[in-house]
Amino acid sequence: MRGLYFNGGLQLKEDLPVPEPGPGEALIKVMAAGICHTDKEIVNGYMDFKGIPGHEFVGVVEKVDDPDMLGKRVVGEINCPCGVCPLCVDGKTNHCHDRTTLGISGRDGAFAEYLTLPISNLHIIPDTLPLYAAVFVEPLAACFRITEQVHINPSNRVVVLGDGKLGLMAAQVMRLNGCALLAVGRYTHKLKILDRLGIRTVKQEDLDTRERFDVVIESTGSPEGFDLARALVDAAGTIVQKSTYVESINVDISSLVVDEISIIGSRCGPFEPAIRALMRGLVNVQELIDRRFPLEMGLQAFEYAMRDAALKVILEMKTYPAEGLREPGEMQQHSVI
Amino acid sequence: MRGLYFNGGLQLKEDLPVPEPGPGEALIKVMAAGICHTDKEIVNGYMDFKGIPGHEFVGVVEKVDDPDMLGKRVVGEINCPCGVCPLCVDGKTNHCHDRTTLGISGRDGAFAEYLTLPISNLHIIPDTLPLYAAVFVEPLAACFRITEQVHINPSNRVVVLGDGKLGLMAAQVMRLNGCALLAVGRYTHKLKILDRLGIRTVKQEDLDTRERFDVVIESTGSPEGFDLARALVDAAGTIVQKSTYVESINVDISSLVVDEISIIGSRCGPFEPAIRALMRGLVNVQELIDRRFPLEMGLQAFEYAMRDAALKVILEMKTYPAEGLREPGEMQQHSVI
Repeated sequence: MRGLYFNGGLQLKEDLPVPEPGPGEALIKVMAAGICHTDKEIVNGYMDFKGIPGHEFVGVVEKVDDPDMLGKRVVGEINCPCGVCPLCVDGKTNHCHDRTTLGISGRDGAFAEYLTLPISNLHIIPDTLPLYAAVFVEPLAACFRITEQVHINPSNRVVVLGDGKLGLMAAQVMRLNGCALLAVGRYTHKLKILDRLGIRTVKQEDLDTRERFDVVIESTGSPEGFDLARALVDAAGTIVQKSTYVESINVDISSLVVDEISIIGSRCGPFEPAIRALMRGLVNVQELIDRRFPLEMGLQAFEYAMRDAALKVILEMKTYPAEGLREPGEMQQHSVI
Repeated sequence: MRGLYFNGGLQLKEDLPVPEPGPGEALIKVMAAGICHTDKEIVNGYMDFKGIPGHEFVGVVEKVDDPDMLGKRVVGEINCPCGVCPLCVDGKTNHCHDRTTLGISGRDGAFAEYLTLPISNLHIIPDTLPLYAAVFVEPLAACFRITEQVHINPSNRVVVLGDGKLGLMAAQVMRLNGCALLAVGRYTHKLKILDRLGIRTVKQEDLDTRERFDVVIESTGSPEGFDLARALVDAAGTIVQKSTYVESINVDISSLVVDEISIIGSRCGPFEPAIRALMRGLVNVQELIDRRFPLEMGLQAFEYAMRDAALKVILEMKTYPAEGLREPGEMQQHSVI
């Protein structure tokens, strides 16, 4: 099969073997897959991954023991836990030390014609949910992880730092709970997506750093983002840490104690709330699509996605009807600023 | 009046003016006051405090507008907020930026014959609660702050790091909720207090660092304590940070995100639960008393309290009946190892 393969460098290969599903697994024919910030880190050497990257996908179940799943359009949770260790038994399957993670660690991913995943990882996508919305279920689930971990009060003052895809989706999820919300970013064309949804936005250079927030969601991806989060969080407030940084950073622990700050590390989240939010039209993800590339242009797609100004880049196995998508020209406009 | 006074150096003074209570304040005749870790930091220059230190006390209300309070034996919350700023209005009075803090910041404290506090800060101590238990209400409240901030599940695995006074009280509070509990310390004589209460204890050098915990309470007071906390906390677990450190420390933020660790800064807590726990005999604080000194021996008391092996040192204005206290010889035994 055709796919992208990373082994120190990213290559397009035509002769990859179609994977064979193991017991309890399904073979999935990939329809489309999103390039995520983590994928960009992977091709920069993060996780020492070797194999087919990609973990945000929609596909069709082509081979499976469960007849109810056959032919279904699905998305899939990316962590494949052992199921028997104390963490798994305790329900913390996403933290299983023996887990493989689709396209990230120990398991080939979605930037190819086929992938395999355990049946228990799959979520059927309702027929009425557009393909190009469904591609966002995995990263949107990571945003719902925030409200799974932290009780965000509708009277809270919340700020989302970062206008990458994750920040734009996190802001949209925060928008739903009634809180007083500010989104801080670097790109006018990205913040405009939130402006149109009635979210107050500000470019980082224009931010009034005297304002204080009960909850700060740090999704800038850069260590300066943590310092900004610390400066903006009010006493007894919470920093939800989504960004990972390559280096360790210096933290004043005493001030965290005196000000009683909470820092909550936050990663993968629940798929079903994400699917429900998309079905209910509560989150606008399709506007986040910057450009679609066919799989055979995968290397160019990565090159394009590497630009900071880029929004979501999608790889597709063939061209699907672009329900609800903006016209290419319009998308283009957003990506050239 | 007699009192200890810090102004770069700690002095015993005989001619300090008796403070005059302001509107809404009470004049309190101090009976006894505990020397806390923070007091030791203050005489080392922390907070740039000048004045009378001391914030853990029991006293009798001697002058007050409220006749119900007159003559009552009281303990007092140490933060005196402005009451009108957004943090105060939001109920976060302990974080008011304009607050004074008894014996710590902007307000003379308890190591003297008299102090003043707002009436609203005072809690009447039931007659049946021994004086030398009541001295611990303030630090014990800081331990109940932990369960105010974090839901500790009775099935959780909890470890308390540090066998200072705070660690020994935090372990006793954790003991009450049914959780699987380990206390880690450096001194056999301190850990024995917990052993006798059925708490599993281990000296730090004998700790099996492969064991994992859902909640780690970091009360060692040293930056190595944070690294140990990070090593012991399980995925999706919580570090409750009680220790303050003079220097900033290096933190691997990415691993906090991947492992979804929460770090919760924790400071002052609620007095009433602490008083109730003492009244119900659920927490043994009197065993934590190492030695009592009369106020005129305050400098020697500080010198004694500075030793790492010391437990709680109490300053008293006169000698009170030692209800429930160990015999001096027995106390002595614990402090000379």
